[in-house]
Formats: sequence, structure tokens, C-alpha cells
Amino acid sequence: MSAGDVVKALIEANESRDIEAVLELMTDDIAYENVGMGVCNGYDEVRALLGPFYGGASRVAWEVLAQVEQGDTVMNERIDRFFLHDGKEIAIRVAGVFEVTGGKVRGWRDYFDTGNLMSQMA
Amino acid sequence: MSAGDVVKALIEANESRDIEAVLELMTDDIAYENVGMGVCNGYDEVRALLGPFYGGASRVAWEVLAQVEQGDTVMNERIDRFFLHDGKEIAIRVAGVFEVTGGKVRGWRDYFDTGNLMSQMA
Repeated sequence: MSAGDVVKALIEANESRDIEAVLELMTDDIAYENVGMGVCNGYDEVRALLGPFYGGASRVAWEVLAQVEQGDTVMNERIDRFFLHDGKEIAIRVAGVFEVTGGKVRGWRDYFDTGNLMSQMA
Repeated sequence: MSAGDVVKALIEANESRDIEAVLELMTDDIAYENVGMGVCNGYDEVRALLGPFYGGASRVAWEVLAQVEQGDTVMNERIDRFFLHDGKEIAIRVAGVFEVTGGKVRGWRDYFDTGNLMSQMA
């Protein structure tokens, strides 16, 4: 798998809302950051952040508008959609940066308008 | 020039605070968006946004942490620093997406924590 394929698999694991499948595609020293909101270091912190988020959604669909890779670095532009159990839909425009090593993601930083996310979640 | 070279030149033109040099690297139907803050369409709107911003800074330094290109699409991860005349420094962590055509940038979308920028500018 190319670095881009690993990231594609990670996106799909997120869409499946399967936190263990997500973690399987990360190294154990993963640093996953939502820029402006904080960094999750390691499996426990990623599980603590994403688990409840996926539990709260009945469907997750991340549309990849473009993805570019070079060596171990992958970047993509996405619209991340979360369909919540109460019928509400959250859509976030995101640019993601990924560092891949040995077929797993070791660094992941998502950039987005944090204020917009907060107002959608309010 | 590769698409990546065009983006590199655009970053340098921004650092030079020379709005005409910036516009020269854009098509006349440029769509430049600070995601969450609005889109500038065409030279006049880009000039109206960036001109005063560069006029207010004595130095602009955009550190490119990584840049990846594939075909006409370029993405980069940056720290954009603005040193204002009053001695204040603004630093913004950014992920940028660029579409290049005929040696010029036609699409440019910067993703960042807008709330953080606003609090630094307050």
C-alpha cells in the first residue's frame, strides 16, 4: 500500500465508525491533532476522542475532494459529514496532513474553521 | 515551472508584501478563500484583502513545513508569521490547497483555526 492508500483506508475506517479499525491503521505513538483544539497522543487518547464522536453518529461520510501524496506525506481536502442520531447533520470543511510510516499513520493534523464546528455542535 | 514552483513563488511574493507580484502569479478569475472567512474573486477583491494586511506589517515570513504536489494540485502546511508595525507578531498554522493552471494559481484555499487568528488580532 502506498502512503495514499493507507490514508484512504483510514478515511474509510472512520466512515465505518469502527474505532479499533481506525487504531489499527495508526502507530502506537500516533499524534493526531485537530489544530486549535488539541493533540491526541497514542491509542487511548484517540479512542477517548473519536469513540464517543462515532457513538453519537448513525452515519459518517467523509468526502475527499482531492488527495495528494509525495513519499510518506499525504495531504487531502475533505468535507467530513456526521449524521447524528437526532437527525442533525454536521459538515466540516477540512484540510488534512498525514505522515505515514511502515503502512501506518504516525502523524495526522486536521485544519478547519474551529468556530464553525463549535457553532454547528451547539 | 512545476505547479509546486508556482506556489513557492506565490509564497515568496506574499513574503515580499508586494501585492502586484502576488496578483501576477494569479489568473484573473482567481478564487482565493480563507475558509470560514470568505472568498476573494478576482484581482480587485484579493488586492482589497491582502493590500491593507501587508501594509500593516513590517515583515511577513511564511514557513513551509511541507509541500506536496501532484499534477496541477499543490497542498502545503505552513506557519504564516506577520510582524506588525507596533511590534506585535501574529503566527497562524495553515494548510493550503492550490490549483495551478498555465503557470498561475487559479484556486487557493487556506484552512486554519479562525478563532485563533481573531483572538491574536484583537
